[in-house]
Amino acid sequence: MAYFGQVSKIAYEGRQSDNPLAYKFYNPEQVILGKTMREHLRFAVAYWHSFTGNGSDPFGSGTAVRGWDRFSGMDLAKARVEACFELLNVLDVDYFCFHDRDIAPEGDTLQETNKNLDVIVAEIKENMKSSGKKLLWNTANMFTNPRFVHGAATTSNADVFAYAAAQVKKALEHGKELGAENYVFWGGREGYETLLNTDLGLELDNLARFMHLAVAYAKEIGFDAQFLIEPKPKEPSKHQYDFDAATTLSFLRQYDLLPHFKLNLEANHATLAGHTFEHELRVARVSGALGSIDANQGDLLLGWDTDEFPTDLYSTTLAMYEILLNEGGIGRGGVNFDAKVRRGSFEPIDVVYSHIAGIDSFARGLQVAAKLIEDRVLENVVADRYASFQSGIGADIVSGKADFRSLEAYALQNNPIQNKSGRLELIKSTINQYLLNA
Amino acid sequence: MAYFGQVSKIAYEGRQSDNPLAYKFYNPEQVILGKTMREHLRFAVAYWHSFTGNGSDPFGSGTAVRGWDRFSGMDLAKARVEACFELLNVLDVDYFCFHDRDIAPEGDTLQETNKNLDVIVAEIKENMKSSGKKLLWNTANMFTNPRFVHGAATTSNADVFAYAAAQVKKALEHGKELGAENYVFWGGREGYETLLNTDLGLELDNLARFMHLAVAYAKEIGFDAQFLIEPKPKEPSKHQYDFDAATTLSFLRQYDLLPHFKLNLEANHATLAGHTFEHELRVARVSGALGSIDANQGDLLLGWDTDEFPTDLYSTTLAMYEILLNEGGIGRGGVNFDAKVRRGSFEPIDVVYSHIAGIDSFARGLQVAAKLIEDRVLENVVADRYASFQSGIGADIVSGKADFRSLEAYALQNNPIQNKSGRLELIKSTINQYLLNA
Amino acid sequence: MAYFGQVSKIAYEGRQSDNPLAYKFYNPEQVILGKTMREHLRFAVAYWHSFTGNGSDPFGSGTAVRGWDRFSGMDLAKARVEACFELLNVLDVDYFCFHDRDIAPEGDTLQETNKNLDVIVAEIKENMKSSGKKLLWNTANMFTNPRFVHGAATTSNADVFAYAAAQVKKALEHGKELGAENYVFWGGREGYETLLNTDLGLELDNLARFMHLAVAYAKEIGFDAQFLIEPKPKEPSKHQYDFDAATTLSFLRQYDLLPHFKLNLEANHATLAGHTFEHELRVARVSGALGSIDANQGDLLLGWDTDEFPTDLYSTTLAMYEILLNEGGIGRGGVNFDAKVRRGSFEPIDVVYSHIAGIDSFARGLQVAAKLIEDRVLENVVADRYASFQSGIGADIVSGKADFRSLEAYALQNNPIQNKSGRLELIKSTINQYLLNA
Amino acid sequence: MAYFGQVSKIAYEGRQSDNPLAYKFYNPEQVILGKTMREHLRFAVAYWHSFTGNGSDPFGSGTAVRGWDRFSGMDLAKARVEACFELLNVLDVDYFCFHDRDIAPEGDTLQETNKNLDVIVAEIKENMKSSGKKLLWNTANMFTNPRFVHGAATTSNADVFAYAAAQVKKALEHGKELGAENYVFWGGREGYETLLNTDLGLELDNLARFMHLAVAYAKEIGFDAQFLIEPKPKEPSKHQYDFDAATTLSFLRQYDLLPHFKLNLEANHATLAGHTFEHELRVARVSGALGSIDANQGDLLLGWDTDEFPTDLYSTTLAMYEILLNEGGIGRGGVNFDAKVRRGSFEPIDVVYSHIAGIDSFARGLQVAAKLIEDRVLENVVADRYASFQSGIGADIVSGKADFRSLEAYALQNNPIQNKSGRLELIKSTINQYLLNA
Repeated sequence: MAYFGQVSKIAYEGRQSDNPLAYKFYNPEQVILGKTMREHLRFAVAYWHSFTGNGSDPFGSGTAVRGWDRFSGMDLAKARVEACFELLNVLDVDYFCFHDRDIAPEGDTLQETNKNLDVIVAEIKENMKSSGKKLLWNTANMFTNPRFVHGAATTSNADVFAYAAAQVKKALEHGKELGAENYVFWGGREGYETLLNTDLGLELDNLARFMHLAVAYAKEIGFDAQFLIEPKPKEPSKHQYDFDAATTLSFLRQYDLLPHFKLNLEANHATLAGHTFEHELRVARVSGALGSIDANQGDLLLGWDTDEFPTDLYSTTLAMYEILLNEGGIGRGGVNFDAKVRRGSFEPIDVVYSHIAGIDSFARGLQVAAKLIEDRVLENVVADRYASFQSGIGADIVSGKADFRSLEAYALQNNPIQNKSGRLELIKSTINQYLLNA
Repeated sequence: MAYFGQVSKIAYEGRQSDNPLAYKFYNPEQVILGKTMREHLRFAVAYWHSFTGNGSDPFGSGTAVRGWDRFSGMDLAKARVEACFELLNVLDVDYFCFHDRDIAPEGDTLQETNKNLDVIVAEIKENMKSSGKKLLWNTANMFTNPRFVHGAATTSNADVFAYAAAQVKKALEHGKELGAENYVFWGGREGYETLLNTDLGLELDNLARFMHLAVAYAKEIGFDAQFLIEPKPKEPSKHQYDFDAATTLSFLRQYDLLPHFKLNLEANHATLAGHTFEHELRVARVSGALGSIDANQGDLLLGWDTDEFPTDLYSTTLAMYEILLNEGGIGRGGVNFDAKVRRGSFEPIDVVYSHIAGIDSFARGLQVAAKLIEDRVLENVVADRYASFQSGIGADIVSGKADFRSLEAYALQNNPIQNKSGRLELIKSTINQYLLNA
Repeated sequence: MAYFGQVSKIAYEGRQSDNPLAYKFYNPEQVILGKTMREHLRFAVAYWHSFTGNGSDPFGSGTAVRGWDRFSGMDLAKARVEACFELLNVLDVDYFCFHDRDIAPEGDTLQETNKNLDVIVAEIKENMKSSGKKLLWNTANMFTNPRFVHGAATTSNADVFAYAAAQVKKALEHGKELGAENYVFWGGREGYETLLNTDLGLELDNLARFMHLAVAYAKEIGFDAQFLIEPKPKEPSKHQYDFDAATTLSFLRQYDLLPHFKLNLEANHATLAGHTFEHELRVARVSGALGSIDANQGDLLLGWDTDEFPTDLYSTTLAMYEILLNEGGIGRGGVNFDAKVRRGSFEPIDVVYSHIAGIDSFARGLQVAAKLIEDRVLENVVADRYASFQSGIGADIVSGKADFRSLEAYALQNNPIQNKSGRLELIKSTINQYLLNA
Repeated sequence: MAYFGQVSKIAYEGRQSDNPLAYKFYNPEQVILGKTMREHLRFAVAYWHSFTGNGSDPFGSGTAVRGWDRFSGMDLAKARVEACFELLNVLDVDYFCFHDRDIAPEGDTLQETNKNLDVIVAEIKENMKSSGKKLLWNTANMFTNPRFVHGAATTSNADVFAYAAAQVKKALEHGKELGAENYVFWGGREGYETLLNTDLGLELDNLARFMHLAVAYAKEIGFDAQFLIEPKPKEPSKHQYDFDAATTLSFLRQYDLLPHFKLNLEANHATLAGHTFEHELRVARVSGALGSIDANQGDLLLGWDTDEFPTDLYSTTLAMYEILLNEGGIGRGGVNFDAKVRRGSFEPIDVVYSHIAGIDSFARGLQVAAKLIEDRVLENVVADRYASFQSGIGADIVSGKADFRSLEAYALQNNPIQNKSGRLELIKSTINQYLLNA
């Protein structure tokens, strides 16, 4: 055992600690706005990055040095389960997430693949029971295997659609078995390389068919997880159908799927789509669809999905601000570290350091966001800015009493119009004050 | 007169012509797929770029040398009307488009502004009657005046909302007066500079309220133009609500506005949002919402709206391909040159050259796209790729007969799966052949 | 007077102050690493943004409400001088910067233009004398006037080259008259719209000729300012010759200009070129060419030059880190706020708030960077990482003793190679600790 | 044999051919501007994409179906040699390029690795002799193996520098053995992940040291290939030192390496750096450093290196225009297809189709560019635009006779200045005409 070195459980030592193996901000039992940090944040470790990933990139093979590298096949799969529960314990993190193909190797047939899965799922269940750790969500990997070269639910090949259905069926069963609180769809191959050979209308229809079938099957087996779609604009596909929150909501609305789905939003996917993370969260929030988050960050000067551990305190603060204002907060969702250590951070201890970095960054973001809300810093700004919609012509607009004739009559006698400054720079100064002092 | 020099009406001289004042591809009366080029393309000149624009940019004042520069106020407005009809005549183009503030100067009060508009609208009507030229669409400029600093329909100030309503009311009346075939909403200030001071939910609700009021008023006065929304992701605002086709469709769906609106799609706005132009057209097409296009092109290495005249034949071909496959083609819409001569192309004749460039590029695009369709080049590719959905398990999927159980049963006995190459490189070679030979 | 409201001199009140008109970090007399903050930072106000800018953008006219708007012509120019010295006094900032065309209006002839300039320069000199404020740098605006449509020193028109030379000649004389500590070249029109009509070789040769002439004339008149080039990749031109630090250094090396020039680096220009600000500073620093900085920040999700006031503490920290490690620190350069209030922040007091935001952000950046250096946080990381070059084969490499034969011999017997983790995530955690606690 | 199916040698069938296995434009023996197409273009196949690549991407394993997949180890290496010469023969292409690690597997030691290489180099030499095919360039792969995680010549570990030296030493020897006409350096790991742990100055110094050692060793063994550096801004590293042509030239100038190196420029690398391909070629050309090209294209809406086969005729035309105007044309360089079939184009025949697509696109580009030059289309534009530098004040500027005093005297009496339109839109129309008709 001890895949991550002789590291004991990471504890909170406070802001002034210089112990690299201590939390400086994450104090799980600290109460903020009526809930503990642990309840607010519901951190999860991502199986794929921390136990399956190896540091390879398109120009280089893996660099990661891991204790489980000496195993292969099912032994490797079992070693990774051990490593997972070890890390959860070290980090004092309650949740984990996985793709089916992260936890068990594919066999020569689907039967064999499923058998491998069953074995490991049983092992995971055992570990969950003894440790009290929980499954935030599971999902099906329908992008790595060459069979998905043209998509899964949006494939041009009906046989692949069938295979994908079988795979998700099994994943839903395993989700139920393990008490997963959510089930995620991320459509890495659901999109196109080129419109020139693509029947976009059929592909979207099929995607909706697939989702309805999944909803029906989960209901049938009594798997009551929250279903989540994770938007991403591109990569691996040139264009992915779940481009961003708004596009995904449009799809859900068009195909009457909105009652069944919320969104799992990722910081790096947001910026690849040209949005801030907080924008995506806000768009989802105002539609009642903010379900869970994938915590990471991108490099805005790079055009690919870097999945860095989140350390930008501005971003974590604004993300937590949206979550705190979301009805029910993060709810059944959580803060899943869909983040990987850099290729150059290849030692096992880097996995620990990087989770500490991310956990502390979100903990600090939570503190700052909560203080902003307690002091109604932004709420007062907004209330003041939009005050004109509380009475008079503004109230008539909002209530639906005004029409173009009454509005014109009003405008013709209302000259000149006075606007007020938006005060962005002052607001940003204030945010900096809260960031440093909260 | 003769604002564009001693240029006579531009005529079709054919592909080998080296006369810079001749069309090489645009032969208005040539019949393609059962309609003339004129009917397919319905070209329009954009008032703002060709008669109001002056070549200024954020770092430089206007460079354009124009015959009407010697006028000011209402005389300038009248001179521009003359120039507009001169250019339409020279180019043999049937349509034009304008914002209210392009055609007449603002006065000190809304009353005075409206009076100015009435005078010029009457003059335009006169010119339309004598020339047979038509108004493709009009719109209201709710972005230039400082009153719109925080938005128009999505302003934080109810007085501004009222003003905007009065302005659109007048624009709808003028549209009716001039027989406009469409009415466009482009929300340059409908978005936010920062989420930190923005009530995004209220702003979107108000935007929907505004649109419903506009629909109601148009109905009331019997103005039966097609309503169009023009998506754009950013600029002038940091983030605009009508980000792209999918986002706009989501908004229309959410607020029950889809029956009343189609989209006016622009090439440069597409690429600023991270999409190809043909992607935006396809997304709109499969939702029955492809209404009209703003023909231009961006520079993908620059991050702002360059509004170049369209000369990339790949883009015009794929745009016309989508339009030809759209039910009813471009319909009541048209191909509006929302394009401006470069700042360095400041002589009047450059306005003529650049429209010839754009018109010929779309004419050539039409020819190539029509030939591709006649030969079923891409249709055959698609039919072959998706053939598996025509029978067997694929037909069951599409018809809704399959469920996760039946699909799993199928998948368990269907091993291995065979995919077929997507053949992208061969398809691209073929497109090149058609481009050069059609 | 009192263009900025009844605001008294902004003073340092400390980190916990909630007075929006106080500095929370900028304590001009605080000593850090042996110099006062005032000496380290040498802040400057930019005339163009704060006194000439009006909040216009490509889609909207000016929104700024300014006390000097009631004047025009030379009266306006004089009012702006007053406003400038008022703001410097209010902010307790020592320096300002201007383009020739910011301070005085152009006349009908170059003679008249120069006469206008002479009048205002005399007025500025008077104000400098009485207030003790200083000119960090001046420059010539060779981009706004239409004559520069095809460039200034890189124009296709020799008459424009001559005009530009005359303009810079005058600017050098005025720089000397006012004791400017630097003179800046920013080539907004020195580039191309398209290669298709551009003689790139001639244009670069002419740019070098122009620079040599400027150096010679400054020497002739005894103007001993540091000459600076300010790189920017694009905007207003499609491609600008001084693309980034490396490109500019290449030009300076090629044309033997490196001894005469350093770089004036801007954060927003850095990110538009695909670099971080600290990258540009580092590249200049290792070439001994870090001269001065334009302090602002861009929006990495937007593709144009937003010139926001700098508030990102990560960026100001890493910028100050490079400056502190630069030989002589910022030297004769300074921290010039090439930043403008947002269009929505249109009240005069926003100009004050935004400078406070920027000044405090750089002051905090200085504190954090200094503490990092005092504790040798990054220095120790680097020393440890590159230790292998201090002895053995590494020392032989650096000293030039090794060749391919000796290195091969070494490599053949040195198996396997051991690398060490780069520890990026831990380093980022540490930076966060310093940011919050320094 | 017959790894690419029963495909016979691809022959020229002309523009109207609809045979997908024929060249429509590439007629190797056609004479253009005094040389055959074969001599102008010197096409090369890239070993890594066509024989080693397997269609994997960061989210998916390989899809490529290849005849050599049934082999492994040295047998696989030998099968690939066969496949390479088969493809060269089928395509009637004269050149190929490889990295050392493409052609032979690494062993447990450098000794063993080198032995493997020796065996395959001998086999390649044999095949070259019998087929008459030639090696355009070889290079060393110093990015895939984990040892290069922190760089090769710019590593933080002296042992890795030594290993890299040994590797390049061997590669130079093999280049000599095979008569390579060029030797390429591409520094995929020569850059940084973060400045926070990087000694940029030492790394650049070491890079220069490495280059000087390579130059010295090549001279010592009499390997007279042209040395080339291939710029790329990012990926795999976050920031690469050879960012673009200008940056690389700056490096070469700074370290006195310019006499020994030219540039190998790639289209996709150009656009990732924010430039057009023709810009990079022009920058190299005016510095006498245009050495060779990597022919491919990127997707400007994606932020990573897609290495698509080049099919955009605008880009191939403008690339060939620069090459035709380069002194000596492509010289000892060539047009190397650093391009890979899409992941969805996984059948062997796609490799053939895609090379045909690329070869024809460059052949057509050559035809169009040659006709543009014959007709002096752009040359006349340029001559006219810059005519003012041929006499009078312009000639004085160019000859160095003018100074700021004489230029000011000229400018003061030269009012107003007249500029001429740059005519970009007309030029683009003309390019379209040539594209379709040449």
